[in-house]
Amino acid sequence: MQHQKVKDLRIAYIGGGSRGWAWGFMQDLAADEEINGVVSLYDIDDDAARKNAVIGEKISNHPEAKSPWRYEVADTLKTALTGADFVVISILPGTFDEMQVDVHEPESVGVWQSVGDTVGPGGIMRALRTIPMYVEIAQAIRDYAPNAWVINYTNPMTICMRTLYAVYPGIRAFGCCHEVFSTQKLLAAMLEDQHGIPGVPREQIITGVTGINHFTFLYSASYGTMDLLPLYRQFVDTYYDTGFVKGKDDNWMNNAFDTSHRVKFDLFKRYGLIAAAGDRHLAEFMPPWYLKDPDTARFWGFGLTPVSWRKQDLSRRLDKRAKLLSGETPVELTPSGEEGHLLMKALLGLGDMVSNVNIPNAGQIENLPMGAVVETNALFCRDGIAPVMAGPLPAGVDALIMRHVLGQEALVKAVLCEDRTTVRNVFLNDPQLSRVDVKDGEQLFERMVAGTAKYLPTWMTGQGGTHGT
Amino acid sequence: MQHQKVKDLRIAYIGGGSRGWAWGFMQDLAADEEINGVVSLYDIDDDAARKNAVIGEKISNHPEAKSPWRYEVADTLKTALTGADFVVISILPGTFDEMQVDVHEPESVGVWQSVGDTVGPGGIMRALRTIPMYVEIAQAIRDYAPNAWVINYTNPMTICMRTLYAVYPGIRAFGCCHEVFSTQKLLAAMLEDQHGIPGVPREQIITGVTGINHFTFLYSASYGTMDLLPLYRQFVDTYYDTGFVKGKDDNWMNNAFDTSHRVKFDLFKRYGLIAAAGDRHLAEFMPPWYLKDPDTARFWGFGLTPVSWRKQDLSRRLDKRAKLLSGETPVELTPSGEEGHLLMKALLGLGDMVSNVNIPNAGQIENLPMGAVVETNALFCRDGIAPVMAGPLPAGVDALIMRHVLGQEALVKAVLCEDRTTVRNVFLNDPQLSRVDVKDGEQLFERMVAGTAKYLPTWMTGQGGTHGT
Amino acid sequence: MQHQKVKDLRIAYIGGGSRGWAWGFMQDLAADEEINGVVSLYDIDDDAARKNAVIGEKISNHPEAKSPWRYEVADTLKTALTGADFVVISILPGTFDEMQVDVHEPESVGVWQSVGDTVGPGGIMRALRTIPMYVEIAQAIRDYAPNAWVINYTNPMTICMRTLYAVYPGIRAFGCCHEVFSTQKLLAAMLEDQHGIPGVPREQIITGVTGINHFTFLYSASYGTMDLLPLYRQFVDTYYDTGFVKGKDDNWMNNAFDTSHRVKFDLFKRYGLIAAAGDRHLAEFMPPWYLKDPDTARFWGFGLTPVSWRKQDLSRRLDKRAKLLSGETPVELTPSGEEGHLLMKALLGLGDMVSNVNIPNAGQIENLPMGAVVETNALFCRDGIAPVMAGPLPAGVDALIMRHVLGQEALVKAVLCEDRTTVRNVFLNDPQLSRVDVKDGEQLFERMVAGTAKYLPTWMTGQGGTHGT
Amino acid sequence: MQHQKVKDLRIAYIGGGSRGWAWGFMQDLAADEEINGVVSLYDIDDDAARKNAVIGEKISNHPEAKSPWRYEVADTLKTALTGADFVVISILPGTFDEMQVDVHEPESVGVWQSVGDTVGPGGIMRALRTIPMYVEIAQAIRDYAPNAWVINYTNPMTICMRTLYAVYPGIRAFGCCHEVFSTQKLLAAMLEDQHGIPGVPREQIITGVTGINHFTFLYSASYGTMDLLPLYRQFVDTYYDTGFVKGKDDNWMNNAFDTSHRVKFDLFKRYGLIAAAGDRHLAEFMPPWYLKDPDTARFWGFGLTPVSWRKQDLSRRLDKRAKLLSGETPVELTPSGEEGHLLMKALLGLGDMVSNVNIPNAGQIENLPMGAVVETNALFCRDGIAPVMAGPLPAGVDALIMRHVLGQEALVKAVLCEDRTTVRNVFLNDPQLSRVDVKDGEQLFERMVAGTAKYLPTWMTGQGGTHGT
Repeated sequence: MQHQKVKDLRIAYIGGGSRGWAWGFMQDLAADEEINGVVSLYDIDDDAARKNAVIGEKISNHPEAKSPWRYEVADTLKTALTGADFVVISILPGTFDEMQVDVHEPESVGVWQSVGDTVGPGGIMRALRTIPMYVEIAQAIRDYAPNAWVINYTNPMTICMRTLYAVYPGIRAFGCCHEVFSTQKLLAAMLEDQHGIPGVPREQIITGVTGINHFTFLYSASYGTMDLLPLYRQFVDTYYDTGFVKGKDDNWMNNAFDTSHRVKFDLFKRYGLIAAAGDRHLAEFMPPWYLKDPDTARFWGFGLTPVSWRKQDLSRRLDKRAKLLSGETPVELTPSGEEGHLLMKALLGLGDMVSNVNIPNAGQIENLPMGAVVETNALFCRDGIAPVMAGPLPAGVDALIMRHVLGQEALVKAVLCEDRTTVRNVFLNDPQLSRVDVKDGEQLFERMVAGTAKYLPTWMTGQGGTHGT
Repeated sequence: MQHQKVKDLRIAYIGGGSRGWAWGFMQDLAADEEINGVVSLYDIDDDAARKNAVIGEKISNHPEAKSPWRYEVADTLKTALTGADFVVISILPGTFDEMQVDVHEPESVGVWQSVGDTVGPGGIMRALRTIPMYVEIAQAIRDYAPNAWVINYTNPMTICMRTLYAVYPGIRAFGCCHEVFSTQKLLAAMLEDQHGIPGVPREQIITGVTGINHFTFLYSASYGTMDLLPLYRQFVDTYYDTGFVKGKDDNWMNNAFDTSHRVKFDLFKRYGLIAAAGDRHLAEFMPPWYLKDPDTARFWGFGLTPVSWRKQDLSRRLDKRAKLLSGETPVELTPSGEEGHLLMKALLGLGDMVSNVNIPNAGQIENLPMGAVVETNALFCRDGIAPVMAGPLPAGVDALIMRHVLGQEALVKAVLCEDRTTVRNVFLNDPQLSRVDVKDGEQLFERMVAGTAKYLPTWMTGQGGTHGT
Repeated sequence: MQHQKVKDLRIAYIGGGSRGWAWGFMQDLAADEEINGVVSLYDIDDDAARKNAVIGEKISNHPEAKSPWRYEVADTLKTALTGADFVVISILPGTFDEMQVDVHEPESVGVWQSVGDTVGPGGIMRALRTIPMYVEIAQAIRDYAPNAWVINYTNPMTICMRTLYAVYPGIRAFGCCHEVFSTQKLLAAMLEDQHGIPGVPREQIITGVTGINHFTFLYSASYGTMDLLPLYRQFVDTYYDTGFVKGKDDNWMNNAFDTSHRVKFDLFKRYGLIAAAGDRHLAEFMPPWYLKDPDTARFWGFGLTPVSWRKQDLSRRLDKRAKLLSGETPVELTPSGEEGHLLMKALLGLGDMVSNVNIPNAGQIENLPMGAVVETNALFCRDGIAPVMAGPLPAGVDALIMRHVLGQEALVKAVLCEDRTTVRNVFLNDPQLSRVDVKDGEQLFERMVAGTAKYLPTWMTGQGGTHGT
Repeated sequence: MQHQKVKDLRIAYIGGGSRGWAWGFMQDLAADEEINGVVSLYDIDDDAARKNAVIGEKISNHPEAKSPWRYEVADTLKTALTGADFVVISILPGTFDEMQVDVHEPESVGVWQSVGDTVGPGGIMRALRTIPMYVEIAQAIRDYAPNAWVINYTNPMTICMRTLYAVYPGIRAFGCCHEVFSTQKLLAAMLEDQHGIPGVPREQIITGVTGINHFTFLYSASYGTMDLLPLYRQFVDTYYDTGFVKGKDDNWMNNAFDTSHRVKFDLFKRYGLIAAAGDRHLAEFMPPWYLKDPDTARFWGFGLTPVSWRKQDLSRRLDKRAKLLSGETPVELTPSGEEGHLLMKALLGLGDMVSNVNIPNAGQIENLPMGAVVETNALFCRDGIAPVMAGPLPAGVDALIMRHVLGQEALVKAVLCEDRTTVRNVFLNDPQLSRVDVKDGEQLFERMVAGTAKYLPTWMTGQGGTHGT
């Protein structure tokens, strides 16, 4: 069975125009000798797709590249999808101008957000923009690539995945997120810091994963025969007050977002599970304990990422792109650290693997609603993803997670049914709004709708400028 | 089948010593010619039980009484329960001194409660006192009256019922509450006020009931061929700003607790269902929209019932008792307005009926956890209570209710397992704590535990006065 | 609330052309003063519909009729359905020539059937003819009367109901069957025969109903305060060997089909529940214990109804129709004994009632699949049918019923998906085929398909006369 | 992480006295350098345990053995279990004299069985003997080794596992069976026979497993990137009539039980899944299509294993044991082909693996009852077994499997409740009884109870020789 190859694959890549993430994926493909084929790039920013195609070809032509991948630019979703074996989706719903509203407008009523792309008022507004886009993508996949495997990377992950399955229940989509990887790296760092075991690769930290994207928990963690939970308990005791700032993740995607894991440590002391996402994400799912104001966030050792930073970062990325295109910066084959290409290979029969993934709940988390998108481990085999059962969420954590699950379920259905009242109800029930008077919350909702109206359907924005309920 | 009678019934009455409610129940029994037998009174306040027995005998000897009931005083639970066909439980967990802590201590961190006996910090502390008492009662029923029908009237209703079933799964217990009746009366008042139909008895308002005790909703309401939901919509529009203060319920239990139904009206506008409990209860289940402070409550037209009022009311009741005993006030046979005796009769085969009831969820509310205690209609027949299916809770309301259901489920299990951490987690996640800093919430928790320690188990209070987590 | 009336109702009546049942329904309508309106008759036998309209008008003009109903003949389903408040469906799928094949062809391999319209090889073949008809009806209801209440009387009941809901999930359909009524009458007869209580109306026998149509069981039965289960146990002991032949049901629909209830008694001894359908039906659901051959059926005291009897009966009915039309036989207002019009009234708000009904399982029978059509009690109120929860089927009976439920579920889906292999698998797994070699069973299947091909879709019959698997 | 070892394990081995299987397990332990410790042997045949201990020590002292295992003999279950990390159970419930009744008594009514140890009249009688033994074992594990991992190898597997969990819900037990391995070997043989790919190890055939023990199905099968289902379809077409007799499994446990896979092929043609157990087992779960009589079995190419063969085989094994003890036959270190020790290692953290396993259904098979013991893949990690979700059973197969699941569920509960009527109902509803008159079936039941009475509880056998229901 050694030396099997799968040739002439067709991958549709939707979006990703200006994200370094796309380049990393191209590097992973080029470095893998067992698969090859064509990547068809589609982006509403056509120029970005074209530039990525050039970069893709450069990577593919790298002298050490092990497999020949070709890059095409598709001018329609239909063209990109037709014949696709895999579809990768990584889009930005709207622009950073809308994200400016998502993240910063709530500050007017005293609500601070560290990311603003998943839950909270920002995440909900982003969802309102994203769902209609994913309706369109789901319909196109149903019509042009009904049997393709679909990998989503866009946030809000849960909302994106839920929309895909709501519109096309036969879709074979799954959502990938690297937050759990960072937590595995933290545990590896713990092994070095506390137990003198350096250099453990994160893949060797075996974890039991449960929850929803960006609010995921480890109910077990092992390194070989070692149970890491009691070790983590000691680790938390040691660093609870100071935070743990050694062994930082130096993945390019994360290093702008410093954290000292104090939120994670506090959650462990309260709930007994290892929260497996960055503190900036975790804080947004909780009651406003960690996000009361910037000082509180600072106390807990994590930063609030301003959209201005994202705009600068975009400019850095565009600059890097220009240099890659001009050849001033040579392309590389460094592994991205992501698993997307490995999961694709597993689905082709080139190596089973277990990894965490976002898919609809078929019972893998016993006490969450069926059909809601959850994140657990799954077994990836040739042509199949089988969730690994995570059992029920424990008391305490169940309530924290369920609150968001019910909100997300309601939100997707409300957008599909054009039910503005329920959208507003979900918004007002988000934990980050807990400290806000309901009237202030309602007015914030209307301001945010107005401020991002360009990307919202008319039933949300109202005609003629009035936004009455 | 006419003129059937059931004789020689045995009813164990647990508690109720100083509550007028017991006298009403005695009146209902005396006025019913189809059943008779013995009531065995048990109260930890033995003297109160004795006095109630005397009052019971007086009622039984009323010249217009239709059936001879005898009243006994039992000195142990075992004596009261042995041979019982029915068990009625109506106790006060602790004294008004503890309730003083429940209701008023949270004001120190800005949390105001209108009742404080169901949810919120007060309801949770009350639950901590109640669960151990109900463990004892459930064990005694299992041992001495395993097949008796058990009717609970104690609050927190859900917690009491859940404990009974957790300890003795074979118990045949159900919980009765008259809050839905008040809402039926409101709808009858609406028919008079808006449609000129006076005097509709509340029993003729047919309602579809769903939710949990004191946070119950009507998904349908009819009067004969009339659909009351569109009429209620108009009614809410008419009285949204002013509240509706005509047609007040003059039931002795309620008239001290004025309300103008504005919370109910606001919930209808938001969620489209008729909330079916008093505003004072409803407000405590919601985010602190209606309970931010006393002014907010006043704005929404409902009162915060201070424990001082309850203490005075108790004194009034003791005074009334004295007069009943001395004969200064003659006993009466006025119907209580409660349904307890009718449900008992239905279970004996003396007339099927449909009524709202609190029992474990066996699927009657599709999207709440199995086993959690819910309130829906049920069909009462000879020897059986069959829940009437209420379907799933609609999006929006589901999240509001689920939050409390998961808290209540966790709380009962945590007390049974002596898991103080989870108790505190539930406390801190209550909506009324939303505006409070987590450290302040933790300190409040410790103060309330200390303040009610007399009725708490030692694993909660700690030994030697320390109350560490 | 007294004296409420609902006027100008519109009832679409599909089929029923030559069935006395239609006339009984017309009598029930005419005798009820609280509802009136128009009945639109549609039958593929247009002449039959016209004749029924004449009879309907005669009944409506009966001097003692209490409400004026008009009768129209619709020439299309669309015309009949448009504007309908209620739809009644009572069709014969195919003719008695097909039923000849259903019932008698299996005798060639030693399989005897007492009815042949529900399960067994005959019931399955009938289902194959019925499902496509019900697909068409469901689509028409969805398009022309989406909110109408739909009452089905056609057999196989479960299959008809399942198809309606599979095609149009939003349909408000329920299936009515009088088999439970007959069992209530048997219990009333028992009260007279054994306990000297004559004349108990069947409505006063309160029963807990569970199971599937024609294989329904009573888990409780009461008359006032009397528990009928222990009495039934004695009754079974008394009549186990001889059967009970007193107190025969003299409903016109049943008296041709004598039974002595010995199958029912045997099932009670084995499973402890009161089977609540005629023995002729019950025997077909069981392993071939009671239907091994005609002698075995005779031993158990029930008849095998030949299709020749049905043909004669049809001729009698046509003769009766002719006499009704000519006036030789005057129309009457005798109550039919059915409940259809009462359930309609309950849905209009003219009197809540609890009755047994066939609807999809939403959990009313805990251990049958969700969505499968089951028969339990339900509460009928204005604009709603709420199933009364029957709990789980007990061990033993669960296996007997589940076998048919899974077969029926598979059959409907297989026909909708044109999956001939699964149709044949269901056929071969029917209990009545248990004694037949599988090759003989396959050949029987092909013969029955060929023999009823006129009413089967081409994917079942094959093109050009070949019927390969 | 390389070169991790776990030392000083304690394994309790219950039964296995005269089975070669025990020696294979000892060989697997001795050949593995990563684990060592003590095996405590307990057998009701104390001498057999002693002899096995001697053989174990010999194996442990084999010059090529890689790890030192010690063997102890325990004189009580308590001694064996106390301190155990793992418990292995492999007992014979009763003797071959009882199995003589199980297998051959039903021939008196024309029921032939190929194995008679799982379902059918033989399997059910064996279950009646086994359940009380497993009640005792479960209680002992609960009391003396509550946290041990428990591996069951005894048949009837499902019944054994179900009893363990019914008695001690906290048990960490799983059941291992090698039938799926044989099917993997068949697929490997197919690859050689049809596609010229020789020598594929069965572990490299990746399969999706669903069903119940000995009636298990593969819904997917892959070899690297190859989908084996279409290949199997061709394979079935080629060998449907002749059977496939090449590539025979030469595992010592199977070679006495020839099969040509024709039952498996026929099931594939009917249901589209690869049945994954030996034909002798499969035939017993189906209606008596393949087991009508010995000629039918011969036609389908499988043998009926007489108990006389088992008695001879036992004598061969005792002879082999004698030679091993005397040294006439030297002990070996050949791998057994079983996975038990690998699963133990996975649970210790010495290598995750996915394998098929029998555990209670927590949703891994969506449409089988929760709690019923099912066989699917599971992920074995340090200290955890997580089922891999297999989704719902497809229509057709669901009915075949459910019939046995409901029978097994009812049987275990009936024995625990001493409910003889339900035991008999389950017996009479077994598919193998389908062709038998019910009275003959009842008499067979009584004869089999009487014939195996020595190992049955008195509530089954009756006192004084009468066996009335």
